[in-house]
Amino acid sequence: MILAALRAALGEAQVLGPDAIAPRYFDDETGGTHGAPVGLVRPGSTQEVSEVLRLCLAAGQAVVVQGGRTGLTRAALPRTGELVLSLERLNRIEDVDATSGTMTLGAGTVLQVAQDAAAEAGWRLAVDIGARGSCTIGGMIATNAGGHQVFRHGMMRAHVLGLEAVLADGSVVSAMQPMLKNNTGYDWKHLLIGAEGTLGVVTRALLRLQPGVAGHETALCALPDYTALVRLLALLQARLGPRLASFEAMWDDFLSQAVAVSDLRAPFEQAWPCCVLVETEGPEDGALGAALEEAWAQGLLGDALLAQSGPERARFWAYRDAIGEITRGMALFEPFDVGAPTAQIGALVEAIRARLAQELGLTRMVCFGHVADGNLHIALELACEDQRHAAEAVIYAAVRAAGGTVSAEHGIGLLKRGWLGHTRSADEIALMRRLRGALDPHAILNPGRIFDMETPR
Amino acid sequence: MILAALRAALGEAQVLGPDAIAPRYFDDETGGTHGAPVGLVRPGSTQEVSEVLRLCLAAGQAVVVQGGRTGLTRAALPRTGELVLSLERLNRIEDVDATSGTMTLGAGTVLQVAQDAAAEAGWRLAVDIGARGSCTIGGMIATNAGGHQVFRHGMMRAHVLGLEAVLADGSVVSAMQPMLKNNTGYDWKHLLIGAEGTLGVVTRALLRLQPGVAGHETALCALPDYTALVRLLALLQARLGPRLASFEAMWDDFLSQAVAVSDLRAPFEQAWPCCVLVETEGPEDGALGAALEEAWAQGLLGDALLAQSGPERARFWAYRDAIGEITRGMALFEPFDVGAPTAQIGALVEAIRARLAQELGLTRMVCFGHVADGNLHIALELACEDQRHAAEAVIYAAVRAAGGTVSAEHGIGLLKRGWLGHTRSADEIALMRRLRGALDPHAILNPGRIFDMETPR
Ligand SMILES: Cc1cc2nc3c(=O)[nH]c(=O)nc-3n(C[C@H](O)[C@H](O)[C@H](O)COP(=O)(O)OP(=O)(O)OC[C@H]3O[C@@H](n4cnc5c(N)ncnc54)[C@H](O)[C@@H]3O)c2cc1C
Ligand SMILES: Cc1cc2nc3c(=O)[nH]c(=O)nc-3n(C[C@H](O)[C@H](O)[C@H](O)COP(=O)(O)OP(=O)(O)OC[C@H]3O[C@@H](n4cnc5c(N)ncnc54)[C@H](O)[C@@H]3O)c2cc1C
Repeated sequence: MILAALRAALGEAQVLGPDAIAPRYFDDETGGTHGAPVGLVRPGSTQEVSEVLRLCLAAGQAVVVQGGRTGLTRAALPRTGELVLSLERLNRIEDVDATSGTMTLGAGTVLQVAQDAAAEAGWRLAVDIGARGSCTIGGMIATNAGGHQVFRHGMMRAHVLGLEAVLADGSVVSAMQPMLKNNTGYDWKHLLIGAEGTLGVVTRALLRLQPGVAGHETALCALPDYTALVRLLALLQARLGPRLASFEAMWDDFLSQAVAVSDLRAPFEQAWPCCVLVETEGPEDGALGAALEEAWAQGLLGDALLAQSGPERARFWAYRDAIGEITRGMALFEPFDVGAPTAQIGALVEAIRARLAQELGLTRMVCFGHVADGNLHIALELACEDQRHAAEAVIYAAVRAAGGTVSAEHGIGLLKRGWLGHTRSADEIALMRRLRGALDPHAILNPGRIFDMETPR
Repeated sequence: MILAALRAALGEAQVLGPDAIAPRYFDDETGGTHGAPVGLVRPGSTQEVSEVLRLCLAAGQAVVVQGGRTGLTRAALPRTGELVLSLERLNRIEDVDATSGTMTLGAGTVLQVAQDAAAEAGWRLAVDIGARGSCTIGGMIATNAGGHQVFRHGMMRAHVLGLEAVLADGSVVSAMQPMLKNNTGYDWKHLLIGAEGTLGVVTRALLRLQPGVAGHETALCALPDYTALVRLLALLQARLGPRLASFEAMWDDFLSQAVAVSDLRAPFEQAWPCCVLVETEGPEDGALGAALEEAWAQGLLGDALLAQSGPERARFWAYRDAIGEITRGMALFEPFDVGAPTAQIGALVEAIRARLAQELGLTRMVCFGHVADGNLHIALELACEDQRHAAEAVIYAAVRAAGGTVSAEHGIGLLKRGWLGHTRSADEIALMRRLRGALDPHAILNPGRIFDMETPR
């Protein structure tokens, strides 16, 4: 019935029944299970998204919004009875303004395509994540994605100058002027950024670009312990200031797994407890090397490799990017994305590792993350579904005790909604539900994501 | 009646009847008129703010929230029948964390006090405005204040890591953990930032500090025309990158007025159409001087003065800070705060000046602003109240034609609510009203600010 209405409005080609949906629309990177959706619709414009939502609201039809399905909370996986709304056809780069350094594009544009278009114009879209080849700008806005350059350039939120979105009732809100400052009433775009598609469907964005960089200096540093890592970070911040762009930690288990699943060689002659991938932006004048020599003299480094060429830089990053391969090698796993003060993350890793081993016998995991932002990732292999809740309880209790967050960058989605109260108070959650109720009173958009016990009505 | 209830809850001392209210609570910097409030309450804690709002909601009592009353939209001026809620007693700096570079403080803390406390700990609160001696952190959060360093460090929003606020029903939402990244549900603090006190009362904040700077280089540059200003900005951005911190334009009328109202001498031997105050952050290694020599060689400069000492730097800033004196010398004036693409601001000034003179005979005004952010201020002297609407119509029509905004940083308040539709669409305003309705359905908080035709109910 909803399909007939959608076909009447949008034509036949972009409205598919359940049997015609290709397998990729059921898949994400977490290996999560999915339900039986009622169909798939692929609108080609903001106006068509608006028509879809108007029809869905009238029919009480729940919708799951899909970008590149690289999300790590299962939020984009269809549940039974939902209509899949894919933004993939809204993938046009409408404009790159090389004078002011901005870019206007459709929500379905893949990150790497946007990065390349910016680079072609002499600018840079200064946000980067491992899923760059598949994740979309709309999905990144909906999750307020982080990545390798948050420390220097901020999360996705910091790059969004203008936004266009369709609300649950089909109304279109659009603020696409290239204004750095605009204090006219509520800045509603900030509410939609990070709302995981529960408050509106992002259709277009105006992104702020950064000037192209002169160059990079990149190093892979082995550390005797986590205390040395914290001191190294402080030293690099003092010496390099805003030139320090990436500071990606990988614990020993991460490096050994990366070597095991790929054709990469072990980077250092011996194993070290922890290693960091450091990268600067700016002139290639040896500043990173000089800072590392100072660190060496202070005994902070076990070993260090400075990239001497572009290919060597790429090889260093290949260790970090091996995470996709590593988790694909785990039959059943869970991607944790917790936050805690940088200085406490070392102890947090040790506490979690010990408790998971002792209490649950779980030992296969890799720890890594954007530690300069206070962000730790753990990819934990599970033997069976039954272990999931107990493992979450162990990790999130430790995080809560550290005053941290159960999600630094991936969001809540389906996977973490039971744990929202570990980071947010009852009053905060009540406020969120009030906002949800005001913008989508019938819970049509992504029902059950973020909040527990929500059914479309 | 409400006063009796408030006294019962908070004690006598901090609840004042209408006759006991000191004159300063009726005054702001715009010379706006005020009404007859029912009283004044000065809570001393978040919990007391919560009790005040609970009682006001029960009594249907409208509240006007006051910080330092330096706002330029008349939003903090009491209207008849309102209760003045002053945050001035919530002025405690609770903590400066010199390790992580954060600061926890009450909403009533004066900006300069916060800046000094940060500096004492070796850090810097990197937001600054002329009203620093009176404006409060809560008011700056409520207005998402801008200032002299937005270009480099962002608006107030960028400095707020954590927030505590009381909603209209008295519920307390608090997210005061020092987390750089926290994607757990809606980031509600971004909705309250810039909402001008209509969605909640800010009681505490956790601010992000920046490392102290090594030094400054400061110059006052005279320009032959606005085109040269735009080219100078591009050259300085290219040469100085993130070291460029301030780029404050002052048109000739501004400088001559500044000299007229103060004891400052004219900075240049002759008058120039436009002048810019440029400041860098970082090592004092002559980089600004070198860039200006290059600009000189390209014919971009009419004259230029490089500060040779701290006192000289202060003197350069004294021109810019003379705006307070200038407007105090105007019997009746309106502070405009419009936005437009930087490259178009020169033509905008000329068009506005010509039309105001031709159509309304208005010629006493000063133009200045944070032009690198696309932000132009105009302080326009009016002969009588009757000219106000016509002058606004001229200026906002020109701004709308340039695709700009009727408020870049000061907000809407009472003064600009009739013009919100010049920058925001009907659907955007409908969305804002929905949010307002969800959080403050009885319009108790700052009624009539931002939105037209709103009465407490
Ligand atoms: C190898 C790998 C590395 C990763 N690294 C990082 C990292 O470093 N940092 C990080 O933050 N994340 C990372 N991720 C997670 C993921 O890439 C991000 O969450 C990304 O933003 C998701 O984009 P997507 O287009 O794939 O969204 P999807 O997975 O399709 O959807 C994610 C959420 O957004 C909603 N959504 C999608 N499009 C829209 C839209 N147009 N309007 C409204 N809602 C929408 C969905 O309903 C869902 O709730 C990584 C993932 C992988 C697989
Ligand atoms: C000389 C001068 C220079 C200025 N320069 C700039 C500038 O460069 N950039 C700029 O952006 N502004 C500037 N301003 C404007 C003004 O200083 C800012 O708007 C400032 O943020 C107001 O702070 P306040 O504490 O005085 O707020 P108030 O004037 O008391 O209030 C402003 C608004 O915020 C609300 N409010 C106040 N406190 C709270 C709270 N705790 N919780 C919720 N709502 C609250 C009020 O109800 C009102 O709506 C300038 C003003 C002057 C006089």
